[in-house]
Amino acid sequence: MGGSDGSSRPEDETERSQFSARICRLPRRIWLRVWEVGHEDPRRVIHSLKVGISLSSVSLLYLLEPSFKGIGNNAIWAVMTVVVVLEFTAGATLCKGLNGGLGTLIAGSLAFFIQYISNESGQVLRAVFVGIAVFMIGAASTYLRFFPYIKKNYDYGVVIFLLTFNLITVSSYRVDDVLKIASERFYMIAIGCGICLFMSLLIFPHWSGEDLHNSTVCKLEGLAKSIQACVNEYFDANLAETEDNSTEDPIDKGYKAVLDSNSADETLALHASWEPRHSRYCHIFPWKQYVELGTALRHFGYTVVALHGCLRTEIQTPLAVRLLFKDPCIRLAGEVSRVLMELSSSISNRRNCSPEILCDQLHDALQDLNKALKSQPRLFVGSEDGLAKHGDRRDLPGSLVSLKTVKTDSSALTEWKSKRALRSHPRDDGEMKTLRPQLSKIAITSLEFSEALPFAAFATLLVETVAKLDLVIEEVEELGRTAHFKDFKHVDEITVTCEKPKVNVPGNQLASHGAE
Amino acid sequence: MGGSDGSSRPEDETERSQFSARICRLPRRIWLRVWEVGHEDPRRVIHSLKVGISLSSVSLLYLLEPSFKGIGNNAIWAVMTVVVVLEFTAGATLCKGLNGGLGTLIAGSLAFFIQYISNESGQVLRAVFVGIAVFMIGAASTYLRFFPYIKKNYDYGVVIFLLTFNLITVSSYRVDDVLKIASERFYMIAIGCGICLFMSLLIFPHWSGEDLHNSTVCKLEGLAKSIQACVNEYFDANLAETEDNSTEDPIDKGYKAVLDSNSADETLALHASWEPRHSRYCHIFPWKQYVELGTALRHFGYTVVALHGCLRTEIQTPLAVRLLFKDPCIRLAGEVSRVLMELSSSISNRRNCSPEILCDQLHDALQDLNKALKSQPRLFVGSEDGLAKHGDRRDLPGSLVSLKTVKTDSSALTEWKSKRALRSHPRDDGEMKTLRPQLSKIAITSLEFSEALPFAAFATLLVETVAKLDLVIEEVEELGRTAHFKDFKHVDEITVTCEKPKVNVPGNQLASHGAE
Repeated sequence: MGGSDGSSRPEDETERSQFSARICRLPRRIWLRVWEVGHEDPRRVIHSLKVGISLSSVSLLYLLEPSFKGIGNNAIWAVMTVVVVLEFTAGATLCKGLNGGLGTLIAGSLAFFIQYISNESGQVLRAVFVGIAVFMIGAASTYLRFFPYIKKNYDYGVVIFLLTFNLITVSSYRVDDVLKIASERFYMIAIGCGICLFMSLLIFPHWSGEDLHNSTVCKLEGLAKSIQACVNEYFDANLAETEDNSTEDPIDKGYKAVLDSNSADETLALHASWEPRHSRYCHIFPWKQYVELGTALRHFGYTVVALHGCLRTEIQTPLAVRLLFKDPCIRLAGEVSRVLMELSSSISNRRNCSPEILCDQLHDALQDLNKALKSQPRLFVGSEDGLAKHGDRRDLPGSLVSLKTVKTDSSALTEWKSKRALRSHPRDDGEMKTLRPQLSKIAITSLEFSEALPFAAFATLLVETVAKLDLVIEEVEELGRTAHFKDFKHVDEITVTCEKPKVNVPGNQLASHGAE
Repeated sequence: MGGSDGSSRPEDETERSQFSARICRLPRRIWLRVWEVGHEDPRRVIHSLKVGISLSSVSLLYLLEPSFKGIGNNAIWAVMTVVVVLEFTAGATLCKGLNGGLGTLIAGSLAFFIQYISNESGQVLRAVFVGIAVFMIGAASTYLRFFPYIKKNYDYGVVIFLLTFNLITVSSYRVDDVLKIASERFYMIAIGCGICLFMSLLIFPHWSGEDLHNSTVCKLEGLAKSIQACVNEYFDANLAETEDNSTEDPIDKGYKAVLDSNSADETLALHASWEPRHSRYCHIFPWKQYVELGTALRHFGYTVVALHGCLRTEIQTPLAVRLLFKDPCIRLAGEVSRVLMELSSSISNRRNCSPEILCDQLHDALQDLNKALKSQPRLFVGSEDGLAKHGDRRDLPGSLVSLKTVKTDSSALTEWKSKRALRSHPRDDGEMKTLRPQLSKIAITSLEFSEALPFAAFATLLVETVAKLDLVIEEVEELGRTAHFKDFKHVDEITVTCEKPKVNVPGNQLASHGAE
């Protein structure tokens, strides 16, 4: 907090008053932060209250112990179960609860079996036997956790198995009435699980499947916005000049969520697969199809990233040339974006998308772009003035149009980085190191290619998005079939794509830790 | 296993013998699978043995209880600690152990404070007070887990805090000598933690930092191979024709690991930040810089994906045209790949990379490509035969070179998918749905653009990799500075880039679950 150092010099007075002002503002800032987290997704508040209620109701069991004889110290098992098993979504709770239950049962049986075998032998021999069993089971089940299939589906169950097995085996060594203790514990764990399931399935349930659905809708919308912003920026002279770091956001934001969605999607799908949740007509939730759609969207996202890369590249087609193709490109991007929004709204409303979704407009937009490219055949001829010598071409102003319009944001970044490096290591052989990036940049920018070559890449990638769009539509249609979405009606077509608050799904996935 | 159904018809005989043969082969197959998991990373076997040894040694505490009076039932806390805290890498163990310890301490203090306050009041009032406290603390700490900063760094600590607080508060309600119980438990947990730390830090330690380092090296190598395979495939006529699904692997494999590395990298870096591990000269491990290098590599990877997309796109420049540029492209890709391999070996050997890493060869390769593009200026003229009408252009063989060489793998996929859809829903309005993708595909392929336009995209993306390479080199140099790598010596340059076994890092990240 950069506080004062306690000295009483007069010039510290202002510093101290600043510090106290900051202290005064602190509660407000904390409150704002707290409010923000809850405002981002109000379900978080509900979940917190649910955990609080579950914990106090399970504690009540213990507090009211005199009424229920025989619960004793085992009530802590119910508390533990609630803390560890109650998760944000119903699917995650079920997954953990059932995994844990299965693990406990298997561990209990195995522990009794081992106790039965070792029961006949003497005290020392029995200790050796138990020690070996603990070692073997511990090593084997840890090794089992490295198998990808086990790890993905039953990891938590294996941990609980190992834990319960050890607890029972170790404590059964001294206690004779193990069966009684174990059954009491099991009873308590069952109560804890029951409270968890009641809370997560019946009281304001949050469904992983719903999250997966909403995040898919959000991703489609994000991509639609991203591609439109990208093409707009490419043809906007003002934007292109002022974009140092602020205007990067709208494009980035759209596809960032898509690119890193792999693990979050798989976790949601895994949890959704445990949810006893069906659509209106009792169709199972097609979580696998959502993951496949997510993969198609990621591949679409990679193309958008490459398209975005065209905006940031060193060599640029002159803006004058670009503007010749502005209208068809913007139209094509608009059509792709429209199709994505339509897909998003069709998933959001759980109805099939229009069979004519790849309609004549998109087709016409493609043809328009084609026509525009044809109408300027000379542009794709390389400039005939021979091979450019590399080096100081940039110092000859006006010699080539393409060099005048070289974008400088990336080079500025490089220079800034080199300077920073030089600053932090002033005595190093910094000259050589700062020279090097410049050299490579000049090497790239001194290439002329054909003037229109970078634009050609942009146009090709734009057309590529249409091809990728096809795969996305395939997956959405497949999703519509497996999830038995409503049939498409032409009345539905007039949909208002309302701006949903974006659900921060990964932000709600609490890591599944446990007890000590 | 597709077993037999137990009927005794003669034609089932062969099926039954097949089934029994499969049963006989089962142990062998299981053994192979077990061996495979261990062979992939032998450290897994070591970790399993470590868990087994820790568990048996902690069980010994309990078995030898008569020698240590006063351990009693609390020995199970040591067992629990070992099961939950002992993780694959030292960093993860430390992170969990210290988080858990901190959580336990804070929870203990808070619980005593609350007990101290409530001690004065009567039994019923006290129960109410405890109930309210449990609710408040439960809800507040669950809410706290949604804060991104807390979630990233202290999530496990908060869970342990919540658990311990509840256990102490609830059990202190009936027991008077809470301090004794608590201190015994704390003692046991400390023993468990001690064993875990001893095992993970001193006995064959596995370091997250080391994993992060090795995975970075692997990613660089993967990208190098990927880009070379990609360019080779683009210019290889035979490969291009036979690539239905098998040849996709070498390219995909290289960049797949890079694209999805985000969360794995961050986890490794987080754990590495806990590791008390320094380089030879006591420099702190620069885990943040590895994450930044990972980001740069991911961006490089996106360009490689786009490049790979050029191989799979619907419209293709005729092979004859492509072959004109084969040599310079392959040379450029070879240079990029060489630089990546050099970076990889420099990180692997912990020495700075050569200051002339972006040497004249790369530069010459760029100029070569430029020269080649210049030497064929006519290619970038659009074919002058007017705008192609969409529709049945593909049925006119030989009308356009570009259309003859349209790649069919993507279209075959689309067709296959439509057929599958038709097969699964024969009564639906499948005709319309199967017509649609065809239409869009034809719409794309009927675009002529300039014949060389797709190649232009390929060439531009290839040059773009050089620009991205620059950023990667920046990050590697920054890494070399912060990690104080050895200085580059020209003698080092003759390095043999040995084929390391690929470390499956995410495969070793066991989810951090806990006890019931």
